[in-house]
Amino acid sequence: MEKLETNVKINDQFWKRYMDVVRNEVIPYQWEALNDRVPDAEPSHAIENFRIAAGESDGEFYGMVFQDSDVAKWLEAVAYLLETNRDPELERIADEVIELLGRAQQSDGYLNTYYTVKEPGKRWTNLRDNHELYCAGHLIEAAVAYFKATGKRRFLDIMCKYADYIDTVFGKGEHQIPGYDGHQEIELALLKLYEVTGNEKYLKLSQYFIDERGKQPHYFDTEKKARGETQPFWFNNDYRYHQAHVPIREQKQAVGHAVRALYMYTAMADLAAKTGDESLKEVCQTLWENVTKRQMYITGGVGSSVFGESFTFDFDLPNDTVYAETCASIALVFWARRMLELEMDGKYADVMERALYNGTISGMDLDGKKFFYVNPLEVWPKACERHDKRHVKPVRQKWFSCACCPPNLARLIASIGHYIYSQKPNTLFVHLYVGSEIHTEIDGRMVEVSQTTNYPWDGAVQLTISPESDCEFTLGLRVPGWCRRVELKINGEKVDMVPLVEKGYAYIKRIWRKGDQVELFFPMPIERIKAHPQVRANVGKVALQRGPIVYCLEEIDNGSNLPNIFLPRDVELQAYFDPELLGGVVVITGSAERVDESAWDGELYKPVEAPTYAVTFKAIPYYAWCNRESGEMIVWMNEK
Amino acid sequence: MEKLETNVKINDQFWKRYMDVVRNEVIPYQWEALNDRVPDAEPSHAIENFRIAAGESDGEFYGMVFQDSDVAKWLEAVAYLLETNRDPELERIADEVIELLGRAQQSDGYLNTYYTVKEPGKRWTNLRDNHELYCAGHLIEAAVAYFKATGKRRFLDIMCKYADYIDTVFGKGEHQIPGYDGHQEIELALLKLYEVTGNEKYLKLSQYFIDERGKQPHYFDTEKKARGETQPFWFNNDYRYHQAHVPIREQKQAVGHAVRALYMYTAMADLAAKTGDESLKEVCQTLWENVTKRQMYITGGVGSSVFGESFTFDFDLPNDTVYAETCASIALVFWARRMLELEMDGKYADVMERALYNGTISGMDLDGKKFFYVNPLEVWPKACERHDKRHVKPVRQKWFSCACCPPNLARLIASIGHYIYSQKPNTLFVHLYVGSEIHTEIDGRMVEVSQTTNYPWDGAVQLTISPESDCEFTLGLRVPGWCRRVELKINGEKVDMVPLVEKGYAYIKRIWRKGDQVELFFPMPIERIKAHPQVRANVGKVALQRGPIVYCLEEIDNGSNLPNIFLPRDVELQAYFDPELLGGVVVITGSAERVDESAWDGELYKPVEAPTYAVTFKAIPYYAWCNRESGEMIVWMNEK
Repeated sequence: MEKLETNVKINDQFWKRYMDVVRNEVIPYQWEALNDRVPDAEPSHAIENFRIAAGESDGEFYGMVFQDSDVAKWLEAVAYLLETNRDPELERIADEVIELLGRAQQSDGYLNTYYTVKEPGKRWTNLRDNHELYCAGHLIEAAVAYFKATGKRRFLDIMCKYADYIDTVFGKGEHQIPGYDGHQEIELALLKLYEVTGNEKYLKLSQYFIDERGKQPHYFDTEKKARGETQPFWFNNDYRYHQAHVPIREQKQAVGHAVRALYMYTAMADLAAKTGDESLKEVCQTLWENVTKRQMYITGGVGSSVFGESFTFDFDLPNDTVYAETCASIALVFWARRMLELEMDGKYADVMERALYNGTISGMDLDGKKFFYVNPLEVWPKACERHDKRHVKPVRQKWFSCACCPPNLARLIASIGHYIYSQKPNTLFVHLYVGSEIHTEIDGRMVEVSQTTNYPWDGAVQLTISPESDCEFTLGLRVPGWCRRVELKINGEKVDMVPLVEKGYAYIKRIWRKGDQVELFFPMPIERIKAHPQVRANVGKVALQRGPIVYCLEEIDNGSNLPNIFLPRDVELQAYFDPELLGGVVVITGSAERVDESAWDGELYKPVEAPTYAVTFKAIPYYAWCNRESGEMIVWMNEK
Repeated sequence: MEKLETNVKINDQFWKRYMDVVRNEVIPYQWEALNDRVPDAEPSHAIENFRIAAGESDGEFYGMVFQDSDVAKWLEAVAYLLETNRDPELERIADEVIELLGRAQQSDGYLNTYYTVKEPGKRWTNLRDNHELYCAGHLIEAAVAYFKATGKRRFLDIMCKYADYIDTVFGKGEHQIPGYDGHQEIELALLKLYEVTGNEKYLKLSQYFIDERGKQPHYFDTEKKARGETQPFWFNNDYRYHQAHVPIREQKQAVGHAVRALYMYTAMADLAAKTGDESLKEVCQTLWENVTKRQMYITGGVGSSVFGESFTFDFDLPNDTVYAETCASIALVFWARRMLELEMDGKYADVMERALYNGTISGMDLDGKKFFYVNPLEVWPKACERHDKRHVKPVRQKWFSCACCPPNLARLIASIGHYIYSQKPNTLFVHLYVGSEIHTEIDGRMVEVSQTTNYPWDGAVQLTISPESDCEFTLGLRVPGWCRRVELKINGEKVDMVPLVEKGYAYIKRIWRKGDQVELFFPMPIERIKAHPQVRANVGKVALQRGPIVYCLEEIDNGSNLPNIFLPRDVELQAYFDPELLGGVVVITGSAERVDESAWDGELYKPVEAPTYAVTFKAIPYYAWCNRESGEMIVWMNEK
């Protein structure tokens, strides 16, 4: 399967706005931040660290051990932006940074400012904690993206040199380190590097890291002993945190740090697709089922505990003490995309879409100026003072001292075009309905497909298929899992879609002619969603979803004490598009009952039925919450 | 108002059993523990610390800075047991301990093993953290109780000597320390010492500690500076934790460590009663309203956060991440008892009864062998692995390294007789309906009142009034707040009670003759209790209460996933006494609906109504939960 990344143009009203925000707001702001030019913000020092490592500046290393990865993620996001709009000024800045990286690289290929500047001679002594290969992975990802976007080899060459050096250091050979990184990332990056270079060495190295993980004698124990450390590991004294508690093929449940887990699953899925490793594919499928059917919020949020930013156990999905890190939902998108390459099944695209339209972009405000690290499903701002909810911020924050989420979101949004289409021999798949154009070669002929839609607000999609000459191929059109009934027309003629559908995709094989029109219509009724009865937090509650969009109630629209609003089972709900609200969103309203607090006198507990009165409630898309005033928010409403 | 403590005999089936458990199990076990003779338990060293302080043993101080208080609480509980049953062997052991205390006392009266053994010369250098006066307070309480129970002065003399010394050390005089303890306790103890000795010095010292608290310049800052400490105080960097953030008379909300707060409020109420200080009385009333109408669980649990074992803010009463320390509910009983002395109002007795029958005794298993520190209202044992719920134990624990709750519960239960009656000139009050006998002097004549009841399982109470000769006085009988209709008969004749009731007490004034019979009947229907609509955790939920007993559902009776059981609004409920269950309890059963989990396939989220089926549920008294198998438990049921 080929990925069609660099030949997609986005003109979607929904995603184009986000891409513009990333281009005009996030990327320039992050550049200022990386250069310590944001007033009142904690310095990043990330660029300065590279200057020091290059011998061009004095001073000390400053920041997290993984500070380099901020530069990497920024460069990667820039690469995706250049893919769609070759802004020469932005490219000039990126080229300069890349040159700086080159000068900071050591003669043997090593490139890491923390160890170069702060602990020279201590390379590879704490793989468990210090993110050395993680940073390498992000730089590799950026280099691959930059090469694909610009065709320039400089960054790719730098990173190949580093990867070649890493390949000499790690492995089971004599004098090699039989280890792997505490934060998975290089595994997926090496597979990208393999893809773009064709050099099997990188695939093998990724495979080595994946296969070696969690084996006994445990490398984290070995290096810990070598460091002379004796204290138990802080996360329950085992390596579940890094998914290194047992070898990967023995893992059946998602555990530990969610981002680590999902980056690893992403690499595993990609590796299984590239090697045809059936047993690895099965592990991926088992873990997929566990994450998406046992441990995922309705928003596509994952990782329900702040302790270790981690997965916990099946059906433990509290709405208020939640973690659901933005980066984890982003990683879920990465994984879903790779699962689709491994097995064409709409369930993967459904989760990808769920995360994209809800739990990822909720991490950023509409202006791209503030960010959530944690994405709660229920917020009572006062309760965020509680010690056990301090990680849940009632409003987005400007920047973080550990700034992983904003640049991660930037690279995701800037690369949204990579998630819409994919191709197999003679088949072009459409996974997401996003206004866009793609130019690709099918069976030796250039084909242009243009997609027009008002998704996610409206389920009408128009595809215009324009091969350079008549051409037989298959169009694989995803039928969203939330959709109960689809209408399909080809050149104005109704076609029964049902017999064409297999595992969530409708396969239309025909000889396509220039200008052929495919019209899809996915009706978007308002759905009342119930959670699995084992999700104790949501018993007796209902969430509203329309199309891929999950809704929430905010205090600004509905007053305080939102849990006191009960949605009657039989009430009719209305949806309408409000162009003035939150950049233009479909709003859901309806009648509900509200407990009459004024009728309750001072006692805490009484043997009475609390009277209720009718109210009209208003729900907005979850991703857009907290863009007006701060206040309460709930996704799951009580039902009556 | 006199307290009638030492002349009450308990023959109640409910409380007698608990007293026997304390006498036969808890006190002997604790004696072994204090002497480090419990196999596999962490050593207490508490007795050994006194031996070392007395110069009779070598070795180091071991334990918490407040280890002495464990001995004090044990002695106090022993005193209450001796009050009702003068066991000579127990008294001999207690006398020996008291002699040991005497030998450990320093020549100036000082008595604290930590500072005597471990940090001599450092007395009174860290009042904020090190519990010196707190330990003194507990020893004083024990000494007062022992004197009242046995008439022996030895212990009282030791403690008067210590209190006299403390009185020289603290105050606003030159060369005096203008401080107070970080853990309130001595304030209430000094008032007891005043009561029994009549020495006003102790009242004044208590008053000084209370009035000085929270004033500026802040003493905790002064001593911190003197210690050369610079780090901020761990609890939000202010002294809310110790209720020392502002002067006491400016406090309107219960904040900080719950036990500290409630011990202080207890002292404040007692002081206000003893001095007639109206402004202090008002502060007590304001705080009472805040605690009992904004921050109390239905079980009488208080303090909803593990961080600082503290109060949080109004209506923040999560059932699962709760704290509700056993000691805090015990302290609530102490405070309620003092509020009754300050102002005869049934609302105080209602809370006292609520805590006594629910959130205090839930801290101990029926055999007196295991204890809860935290008393949750909803337990999903698996979720106790979550880092933010680790303080919530799914089963009672044998002993605690910080062993405050078990001896505190022992002293409460052993002194249950102190909470039943009280007396004002010419009026005898009955606050609790507990099978008992009291002998007291009213208006110069001896009166015997005997009370027979099957409370809390049945609301029939029979009082036999036997003055030595005909005698006019008033009987003040509490009408429980949970009771909607009362029946009263005097010598078999129905009397309309309604016009006799004022603020929760029915006042019956008449000439009482030997053998007069008063029959009360408080019907105990099963009540469906709703929480204030601001308690977000309980919206859409109902708790069952019958008489003073709050009920819960356990997994052993109702299967797992208890939140999936819905109680229909209109369903009839049955109550019956099961003599075989949990030592004999009234059980509540009824029909409910349960979500059919088997009808739900693997998806996490679906737009379907989950089907339900009818089940019969069984609820048991909350205090008796976790006495069979460990498993889930809920107090608040979902309602349909």
